[in-house]
Amino acid sequence: MTVEKRTPLPISEAVERVMEHTKPPEKEWVSVEEAYGRYLAEDLIADHDVPSFDRSPYDGFAIIAGDTSEASRENPVTLEVIGEIGAGDVFEGHVTHNQAVRIMTGAKIPDDCNAVIMLELVHEFMENGKPYIEVKRSLQEGDNISFQGEDTQKGTPLVQKGTCINPGVNALLATFGYNQVPVAKKPVVGVVATGSELLDVSEPLSPGKIRNSNSYMMLAQIKKAGAEAKYLGKLQDDFEECLQAVRDALDEVDILITTGGVSVGDFDYVPAILESLDATVLFNKVAMRPGSVTTVAAVGDKLIYGLSGNPSACYVGFEVFTRPVIRHSLSSQTPHLRKTKAVLGSDFPKPNPFTRFVRASIIDTDGQYTAVPTGLDKSGSVTSLSQADVFIVLPGGTRGYEKGMSVDVLFLEDHKGSEWPWSNIVPSYR
Amino acid sequence: MTVEKRTPLPISEAVERVMEHTKPPEKEWVSVEEAYGRYLAEDLIADHDVPSFDRSPYDGFAIIAGDTSEASRENPVTLEVIGEIGAGDVFEGHVTHNQAVRIMTGAKIPDDCNAVIMLELVHEFMENGKPYIEVKRSLQEGDNISFQGEDTQKGTPLVQKGTCINPGVNALLATFGYNQVPVAKKPVVGVVATGSELLDVSEPLSPGKIRNSNSYMMLAQIKKAGAEAKYLGKLQDDFEECLQAVRDALDEVDILITTGGVSVGDFDYVPAILESLDATVLFNKVAMRPGSVTTVAAVGDKLIYGLSGNPSACYVGFEVFTRPVIRHSLSSQTPHLRKTKAVLGSDFPKPNPFTRFVRASIIDTDGQYTAVPTGLDKSGSVTSLSQADVFIVLPGGTRGYEKGMSVDVLFLEDHKGSEWPWSNIVPSYR
Repeated sequence: MTVEKRTPLPISEAVERVMEHTKPPEKEWVSVEEAYGRYLAEDLIADHDVPSFDRSPYDGFAIIAGDTSEASRENPVTLEVIGEIGAGDVFEGHVTHNQAVRIMTGAKIPDDCNAVIMLELVHEFMENGKPYIEVKRSLQEGDNISFQGEDTQKGTPLVQKGTCINPGVNALLATFGYNQVPVAKKPVVGVVATGSELLDVSEPLSPGKIRNSNSYMMLAQIKKAGAEAKYLGKLQDDFEECLQAVRDALDEVDILITTGGVSVGDFDYVPAILESLDATVLFNKVAMRPGSVTTVAAVGDKLIYGLSGNPSACYVGFEVFTRPVIRHSLSSQTPHLRKTKAVLGSDFPKPNPFTRFVRASIIDTDGQYTAVPTGLDKSGSVTSLSQADVFIVLPGGTRGYEKGMSVDVLFLEDHKGSEWPWSNIVPSYR
Repeated sequence: MTVEKRTPLPISEAVERVMEHTKPPEKEWVSVEEAYGRYLAEDLIADHDVPSFDRSPYDGFAIIAGDTSEASRENPVTLEVIGEIGAGDVFEGHVTHNQAVRIMTGAKIPDDCNAVIMLELVHEFMENGKPYIEVKRSLQEGDNISFQGEDTQKGTPLVQKGTCINPGVNALLATFGYNQVPVAKKPVVGVVATGSELLDVSEPLSPGKIRNSNSYMMLAQIKKAGAEAKYLGKLQDDFEECLQAVRDALDEVDILITTGGVSVGDFDYVPAILESLDATVLFNKVAMRPGSVTTVAAVGDKLIYGLSGNPSACYVGFEVFTRPVIRHSLSSQTPHLRKTKAVLGSDFPKPNPFTRFVRASIIDTDGQYTAVPTGLDKSGSVTSLSQADVFIVLPGGTRGYEKGMSVDVLFLEDHKGSEWPWSNIVPSYR
């Protein structure tokens, strides 16, 4: 029985190797009603001015400003109301001096008018069966007009490709006539579980066995990252069957993730499968905790991830090495977890040669963020993941860390992401 | 032509009135594979210990600790390896002194053993065809054992109902055998557009017209809040047709939102429709900008929202008055937008009697958050919404606000939410 020796790779180098194997994003079209939460595959450019015509921001009266130049409380000016314009209508008539047109919010200003007076500021009355208004103040040319292009000028780049479509982006898409929206095609990510200790979720517990929780965690992580998740079941114990299952899986997916069976020990078919597939192993050990025993390999234009069977190691391995590949496929310029600083909420007196990712919950005290580790931090702990908002990043080395220090944190729920967040962890990253 | 006079209600009171008309959450069951992103309808309680048996956290050898009490580098102890246990297996034999059992990560510790020594720390050898290990250190009882219940004890409440199911919660659900998951039923929220100026997204622009962007923004906001969105089309100009369309819509939805047609002016059927439906108008004007002209009415156990036709006013009205109703239906204890503090990124010298919601983007400088208004802040502006992370809340009154001040912000993209965030805006809220 021999134990394979593995050399741990710095995190930055491991991520770099993975990112060299990303594929260019592909595009597909979805209806504007289905676009929410997808990632834009093209920059969104204004194809017309907004507003596309001079319009009234209020209900009121469109007038010629010069007619009011002498108006005051003591000396009101009377204008004849010669028509009205509903929103969406266009006034076809001609407006001359001392005339006004009733105008609704959003309606187009008549060509002859150059100001709007709000409904609340006039006195309306009838005389000889004709409607009039009395104006008690002087208006300037342009008063209360939303001018064409004031909000957005034609040609303005509005939203960058790779942006997650939020409600505001959806409104822009509708404004600019995108009945069909170009979005990045979701890569398909398959999950296979390995490990004879695994029970299906519906099976009763039995001695020595645990339920397969990693697969369902991964499926959710894949969806969170923006990809399509496919659960491909549990691998059998027979090597040839495993190999065939992996070959079949690779036909169906862009990325294949195996969880479990990657400890340094026996009963682990992953290395042998990778060898049989003639895969290029990018790395099989990383200088991080948890997740040091993470394998990534390339087979043709597909990636195979061998993630640990420990839930936390599996979780970290996905977020650090798989998520950025998925987000890159979604055109994101910021595919990595969003990094910022927070106050460390616990002591970590023991140094560790490997960089640690500590799952933590963020306590927000009026905008001051403290990262408090969620429960015990054994790599087998699953409860702490459900409460984690961030990973605290504690760079490896010869020192410990103290409560109150400012440390790097990586946000787990975030659409924005970061470019390359590791520069101050491993400065050698190019 | 008369103008209806409306008295603005303080925001807190308006929200309070709406929250009095929420319905109790309903429950439905979905498969664990489909549970991600839904909201738990019941507390999740551990129904067994985790681990459910004493297990090995490493690949190594299960031993009797006492056998190594004299072991040292100079004086190694030799133990006979009498078997091996794969993950998921149970060792059926009996282990006596000076014996060891090869054990895989996650496997159950044999009943007779009380410690594990890691694979890397022993020397393995064969003698007379039998396998042995040499141990060069002394172990204590319990060393390297993950004890039953160490992570989670049976009966521990793990996740509160109303929590959005993230990957970590998904893992817990699988661990505890939730093949079917109790989740809050999504309320159905319908959207109808009003306004004769509105073009469909696919129609070409024409003078005086704009494309209907609010409806598509609302559909995305509804999904973001966690509800099911239903677009019910544009109301016609004929009053009786409008009324019938609203009656029909109410049969299909829990909440109905109309956008547009709620300015104080004519051509607005909403008040007349509410009267015909014998609806209880909760309020029709709120002391806030944008969104002051927001109407909410109750018809039986359903709510009808008359939101402004201005995109930003519509957006704010939904987030402040509709989102908490939806999240309450999803069992959330924190249904309102998450409030925190940030540094104000611009001057707002002019006081305003109404509380202002200023859409802003968050600039994160090493965990110090500055809220910078996104573009011009006219209520008709749509581009600024797509870049907004937060609303800056500027309480109404007689003072302006200066760049650098600490102000309240409400996060727009957030699963956690707040309880009642308005206490310091309007202290009278009970």
